[in-house]
Amino acid sequence: MIISDRFLVTGFSGFVSKHFLDFLESEKKVVHIVGIDLFPPSFNIKNFNYVKCDFLKVDLLNKTELEKVISEFKPNYVLHLASFSSVALSWKKPVESFTNNTNIFLNLIETIHSLNLKCRILSVGSSEEYGNVNESELPLKETHALKPNSPYAVARVSQEMLSKVYADSYGLDIVMTRSFNHIGAYQKDIFVVSSFAKQLTHLKNNASEIKEISTGDTSVIRDFVDVRDVVKAYYLLFKKGKAGEVYNICSGRGISLNDVIQIMASILDMSVIQTIDNQLVRPNDIRKIIGSNEKIKLDTGWNNAISIEQSLNDILEYYK
Amino acid sequence: MIISDRFLVTGFSGFVSKHFLDFLESEKKVVHIVGIDLFPPSFNIKNFNYVKCDFLKVDLLNKTELEKVISEFKPNYVLHLASFSSVALSWKKPVESFTNNTNIFLNLIETIHSLNLKCRILSVGSSEEYGNVNESELPLKETHALKPNSPYAVARVSQEMLSKVYADSYGLDIVMTRSFNHIGAYQKDIFVVSSFAKQLTHLKNNASEIKEISTGDTSVIRDFVDVRDVVKAYYLLFKKGKAGEVYNICSGRGISLNDVIQIMASILDMSVIQTIDNQLVRPNDIRKIIGSNEKIKLDTGWNNAISIEQSLNDILEYYK
Repeated sequence: MIISDRFLVTGFSGFVSKHFLDFLESEKKVVHIVGIDLFPPSFNIKNFNYVKCDFLKVDLLNKTELEKVISEFKPNYVLHLASFSSVALSWKKPVESFTNNTNIFLNLIETIHSLNLKCRILSVGSSEEYGNVNESELPLKETHALKPNSPYAVARVSQEMLSKVYADSYGLDIVMTRSFNHIGAYQKDIFVVSSFAKQLTHLKNNASEIKEISTGDTSVIRDFVDVRDVVKAYYLLFKKGKAGEVYNICSGRGISLNDVIQIMASILDMSVIQTIDNQLVRPNDIRKIIGSNEKIKLDTGWNNAISIEQSLNDILEYYK
Repeated sequence: MIISDRFLVTGFSGFVSKHFLDFLESEKKVVHIVGIDLFPPSFNIKNFNYVKCDFLKVDLLNKTELEKVISEFKPNYVLHLASFSSVALSWKKPVESFTNNTNIFLNLIETIHSLNLKCRILSVGSSEEYGNVNESELPLKETHALKPNSPYAVARVSQEMLSKVYADSYGLDIVMTRSFNHIGAYQKDIFVVSSFAKQLTHLKNNASEIKEISTGDTSVIRDFVDVRDVVKAYYLLFKKGKAGEVYNICSGRGISLNDVIQIMASILDMSVIQTIDNQLVRPNDIRKIIGSNEKIKLDTGWNNAISIEQSLNDILEYYK
């Protein structure tokens, strides 16, 4: 088998990376992946038939290490997943959040530019970049103004602005995303849907307890997209996205956290009481956000195939 | 004499700081300044009658050092001048430029927030934040969209976005500026007007040489504002600016670099030939930029009192 593409994947040990590998394998893509991260992945990277996979421990803040890996591997695609991606934690550790979003990205693109490497970079951003929006402006198109309202969101907008500068001034082949909240198996339980799923399956398994779960403000509405649809979008953007452009990756539908809980409770055939934990209520949180996915559909033929019920069901299966 | 205000000044050893001290002294303000920088200032800080001044060597990237200084001095005003402020150098050292603009600022506001210190912070930004603009949009108001087109400009927009987040979410008392190109005595000669002044006075003093100066693209138009007007604006913003707001600091008039050279040549009573040095031509440079200073005039009563001819004359006097 001849290797068709060489992908460098940053933030390799995270759950999006695992789903990206699974996608490539299921599509029988004969590719070579070099994954880099601060810690090795907890999933097996050697059980694929089509995907050849290696892991290297690399700190993206260490430019010398990064240069060595990139100059040796010479990827033709770079999937930049590495991120300090929790909004909540960015309030507690704003400096770390900023450094581990923006500074690592700048190191990455500056290394690729200085090596004069021809490759396509996917700069993964976030729907948090939009900030608070009026309901009348939904669903959000990519042309909408960005009003970031958390340290994490500022870091992501900074990353996107740097992408634009390097694309416009140096012709770097960068495609940008604003990825909405993605959900799926293997996601860390600091993220909201996984946290709910973990709590609910635990309650289900302990018949005697009061069915009570601890939440933040569950009236907020989010546009959740299944991680398996997300990684398909990333692959299509590598192949068909337009350089220097930014793409929403979202389902186009909004759902409240409360409804997420109710759907999961219904799948588990139980009823549940919510209690508000003020520690989980974020300052200045976005009330309602729904994205438009017209642009990525038009340019790449992508579609979000997986329903929210299917996603939630599969996450609960994972926790069982 | 009773000290009325305590100012912490970052980037203390730069030329703006020197002019700020001179302004306070000339206004007979009885204040205590603690200046911090990586290197001590080259100007004398002990020859004032009204201004009490101390210098401390502090690296703004070292949060522990910074916390110590701020918690001991307890400033009621923080003038944040520290910056890696050259656009040209930001292309050569983008990582350093970013770190020494955005990361140092985040360290500063996060320290003030975590100490729960009540003080007003002046976050100095740049006209470079606007990026390339159409002539029909001039003069630029503060509401104009930001399209940064250099690593330096991105760093400055990031700083401003962080200011907004900390002002909105934590109620930090931050006033922001977009300061246009300021000029004056003591400015480093890596900046364009000082570079011209230095070259021209050198040519003037060497009668036998060909009167030829080396420049970048001198057709670009800039809004130059005298540093003495700038520091007066900073003082007025501390006293009368609105928290969470951003203010242009500019003259409201545009002048080409070519005209700057011709005015200085005329003051020196000489004629001069320009030669283009391609090393000095920047990628993707802004063609023409003029700001509106209506907002700061309205809110603080500031006015730019010093003409361009006066500024250029005084800079030439400094180089003589």
